[in-house]
Amino acid sequence: MDLESLTANILAGRYRALGQAITLVERESPEVERLLADLYPFTGRARIIGITGSPGAGKSTLVAAMARHYRKEGKRVGIIAVDPTSPFTGGAILGDRIRMADLYTDRGVFIRSMATRGFLGGLAKATNDVVDLLDAAGFDQVLVETVGVGQDEVEVMRTVQTNMVVLVPGMGDDIQAIKAGIMEIGDLFAVNKADRPGADKTVTEVTMMMSLVEEHGDWIPPIVKTVASRSQGIEELDEALVRHYAYLTSSGELVRRNRERVRIRIETQLKEKFMERLIGRTISREDFESLLDEVLHKRNNPHDAAESVLEKIAF
Amino acid sequence: MDLESLTANILAGRYRALGQAITLVERESPEVERLLADLYPFTGRARIIGITGSPGAGKSTLVAAMARHYRKEGKRVGIIAVDPTSPFTGGAILGDRIRMADLYTDRGVFIRSMATRGFLGGLAKATNDVVDLLDAAGFDQVLVETVGVGQDEVEVMRTVQTNMVVLVPGMGDDIQAIKAGIMEIGDLFAVNKADRPGADKTVTEVTMMMSLVEEHGDWIPPIVKTVASRSQGIEELDEALVRHYAYLTSSGELVRRNRERVRIRIETQLKEKFMERLIGRTISREDFESLLDEVLHKRNNPHDAAESVLEKIAF
Repeated sequence: MDLESLTANILAGRYRALGQAITLVERESPEVERLLADLYPFTGRARIIGITGSPGAGKSTLVAAMARHYRKEGKRVGIIAVDPTSPFTGGAILGDRIRMADLYTDRGVFIRSMATRGFLGGLAKATNDVVDLLDAAGFDQVLVETVGVGQDEVEVMRTVQTNMVVLVPGMGDDIQAIKAGIMEIGDLFAVNKADRPGADKTVTEVTMMMSLVEEHGDWIPPIVKTVASRSQGIEELDEALVRHYAYLTSSGELVRRNRERVRIRIETQLKEKFMERLIGRTISREDFESLLDEVLHKRNNPHDAAESVLEKIAF
Repeated sequence: MDLESLTANILAGRYRALGQAITLVERESPEVERLLADLYPFTGRARIIGITGSPGAGKSTLVAAMARHYRKEGKRVGIIAVDPTSPFTGGAILGDRIRMADLYTDRGVFIRSMATRGFLGGLAKATNDVVDLLDAAGFDQVLVETVGVGQDEVEVMRTVQTNMVVLVPGMGDDIQAIKAGIMEIGDLFAVNKADRPGADKTVTEVTMMMSLVEEHGDWIPPIVKTVASRSQGIEELDEALVRHYAYLTSSGELVRRNRERVRIRIETQLKEKFMERLIGRTISREDFESLLDEVLHKRNNPHDAAESVLEKIAF
């Protein structure tokens, strides 16, 4: 399929074209940049929600319950799983996939998992690109599931509109430490598996931890108890999400976040294209490899080696 | 302290200077690049080992046991914890820190935890820089503990000489998925908490998974059972590590890995310095912000915006 008809078919919301385009993103094909550029004016309509939490928190079950909720409202739902432990990924356990079977066969739902490594351009960029593709293809709700540990995951979290952090009662101290790390990035909290003992204790703990975070502005992140496996608390969760979107738009925070997202994307493009041009134009591949050998044998260092290349460019 | 005496004091192995330098790395101070460049010729002597595994696998206890083992051999040990859940990090539980008290008071051990986010230049770069500092300061063994989930962590794993993956018996299927993801990067495997039921089953599982991985070359990753809390299996682990180092040097793999590390470092330097120069020289900060607004309002897209800036540079 040529780029023009691929673009047209994505805008028409065709799944096959969408799948092809995502494969191009994953393979980091050069033509994908042109495709994304052409689709870019048609983005900006989707509601993009990040769902973050440790393995075992029931993120995928919660995402599935949310997807079913949106489907009842007649919305089209895109799910991107950026988590090697997600049932939506290839490495999933069969039982989990069977529990999601209704979603896999629903024409209004598109599910895709992203490998969490091997992207030269960065996982956040690839995820961002896939979000744009789903956005341009007319999906109303895009749910991005991520494990939330690691800097790259945090960057993924920066690319969504609302960050939901999923916790469970009675997790160990190890998890407490993770929680502390992602606490300040959470716009709202779901205490999932809330039928387990200790749910209220976890709510209290989160409330206390929240009071230590200063940078929330006028928005106080709500904490919602859910039992995703029985679809309990999903409406309350959606209400909180709707309220957060209202806050984002009225406070100007949405524009601020979108602007930040644009900044990251332009800078990523600049760095990538710079490297592509540099080697071959400013310095030949052989000379670059020689430079590398010099550093390897301690006759030069990475800092001065980079400087020597940059000196040749007229900025 | 001026840069020259800081350099001298690091080379003399003084902890205060080392601490200061690491703080400079963490703050991404501009002068740190000069410091690292000056220290670079004195690096390359440390044995750098990565320890990766899920929270709860007992990585820190294993790292502590290894550190004690090396101390008995009279070696100086540097520990870098790149894991928000590590007892070595600030968010640690007091009990864990008390169990490590002997290491914290040992003058031959240097412990530092790295925050896993907030590094503009990347967590892998910052970790690499700290490894270099410890290397130049004369540490014989540098142990880098990382949670191993996420692309940035995998990049950290690429910067060490030997990757040890820590597993525990009877972890759930969630963990199996993580394991699958880091399986091919492991140079050796520790099945920790091996006094628990299922240790042999885990060894068998790993052996089977290993047989599916093709890219190990002549090295077949050994699997060692350990009980870190009782220092069991640490000598066997060290033997395996010594054997791996012998393999690395004799096969030429060490040079290949070092070369890859050098490549990543030069490229990182190039990209960073490029962005520093670009904004202010090729394009003014105001013009860059205007460009950003154009993209934000869909009058342009990230790809073409980046192209328009790059066109101004004579490569």
